Amino acid sequence: MQLINRKNVLIVHAHPERTSVTHQLSDIASEVLKAQGHEVLHSDLYGMGWKAVFDDQDFPQRVNQDRLSFIEESGNAFSNGWQTPDVVEEQRKILAANAVILIFPLWWYSMPAIMKGWVDRVWAFGLAYGYRGAGNTYRYGEGGFAGKRALLGVSVGGSAQDYSPRGINGPLEQLLFPITHGTLFFPGMQVLPTFAVYGTAGLEAKGMAEATMAWRSRVERLFEDEPIAFRSQNGGDYPDRHVLADHVAPNQTGLTAHIADVS
Amino acid sequence: MQLINRKNVLIVHAHPERTSVTHQLSDIASEVLKAQGHEVLHSDLYGMGWKAVFDDQDFPQRVNQDRLSFIEESGNAFSNGWQTPDVVEEQRKILAANAVILIFPLWWYSMPAIMKGWVDRVWAFGLAYGYRGAGNTYRYGEGGFAGKRALLGVSVGGSAQDYSPRGINGPLEQLLFPITHGTLFFPGMQVLPTFAVYGTAGLEAKGMAEATMAWRSRVERLFEDEPIAFRSQNGGDYPDRHVLADHVAPNQTGLTAHIADVS
Repeated sequence: MQLINRKNVLIVHAHPERTSVTHQLSDIASEVLKAQGHEVLHSDLYGMGWKAVFDDQDFPQRVNQDRLSFIEESGNAFSNGWQTPDVVEEQRKILAANAVILIFPLWWYSMPAIMKGWVDRVWAFGLAYGYRGAGNTYRYGEGGFAGKRALLGVSVGGSAQDYSPRGINGPLEQLLFPITHGTLFFPGMQVLPTFAVYGTAGLEAKGMAEATMAWRSRVERLFEDEPIAFRSQNGGDYPDRHVLADHVAPNQTGLTAHIADVS
Repeated sequence: MQLINRKNVLIVHAHPERTSVTHQLSDIASEVLKAQGHEVLHSDLYGMGWKAVFDDQDFPQRVNQDRLSFIEESGNAFSNGWQTPDVVEEQRKILAANAVILIFPLWWYSMPAIMKGWVDRVWAFGLAYGYRGAGNTYRYGEGGFAGKRALLGVSVGGSAQDYSPRGINGPLEQLLFPITHGTLFFPGMQVLPTFAVYGTAGLEAKGMAEATMAWRSRVERLFEDEPIAFRSQNGGDYPDRHVLADHVAPNQTGLTAHIADVS
């Protein structure tokens, strides 16, 4: 037991079927982390009956009864203690965690709605964006979730080939950029390269055994692996906080220009 | 009235506030299309109380009671007439439509959960994927929604600069690739370039008036504008249906390699 390095890890997962690859990845992660002496928290979104839709019920005490602005009401609810208990509890878990692992089946190249609704509702103004009431001062590498690690574990129906650099679906890591960069790195998390199990629609015992070994190894190195080298907003690459400096990734455009070691 | 060119258009939108930019874009689109003599169908997801979460309640008659496989149950529910009435109704609207317009606020670089859940639940196996029970034979340009056009109208809180080719968020069209390419082109729709209103967090009357004019013009040309030149799976660029042929976009990788006119 490495009590001195004991960390808290939150595992958020989204599949209702107990035998799904998603549940298996969640169970394996939990087992590996506990064996390392870490504390594991769970958010089983289907099991919890998580409310996916972000709506006026999220704001029992509105500052503006006439017009619903999510940004305004989210900021006020967060700073005045008016958030709903389910949202408060998820924020408490994230804030207590040194790392967050999101495990989900890839549905239409993104998260299932229930997990998207977890982000929509829990990523409050003042915490995950508009941090410290300072607009976009702190984002992409700094913010309310700074100092935490994040890792996606994704169950993918299609083949690895379809997600390869020239595969027809597009590379998985680029399809997930709105999540890794835009959702997790934005409020300050350090995001590890995505772990994927491919071909889950027809996965047999051998394939699952190989995936299990690979996943165990990735979870074991959760606090050691190098994060994706996303460029931080305030590290010098974006002098105006909006656009890459001319000398950074010169002549490159698009998503990969925001990763330091991709050319 | 151009009755001879009368088309059906489905507008799907996702914001609960009647005065939101999303609702305004929806109202404008409806007005323009009706003035052109078209028939307009609406799916106001918040207004309808759309069930966002895809779960076992979507399958009142299961083929496998022991283990929930979404692909298997979706395919069986679709082909055997066991889908829930709300899903059947949305599919009916899409199938009746010559074009589908999705209007939403960009939340964490993607759709709100309620709209993601509309896709998750309505894009059935046998219709939007696994078309004709033929695996991946028909996808990316062919499939259950072939011959229809699609257009995204997106309300974006941040500035256009942040979404510019070297902007810190990444280019909007690349962030939306999982939706335009992976969700709409996949089952066969021809997808137009995305329309965005930026800076909606602080949009004043002048900005909204300009956005309104631009949007009117885009909706007027819904059936005339050139779609994004996504490469079709069966058009010759993917000889094995999985990976780009060597001579196509040689040496390019990533999302933009799948667009014919982007170099």
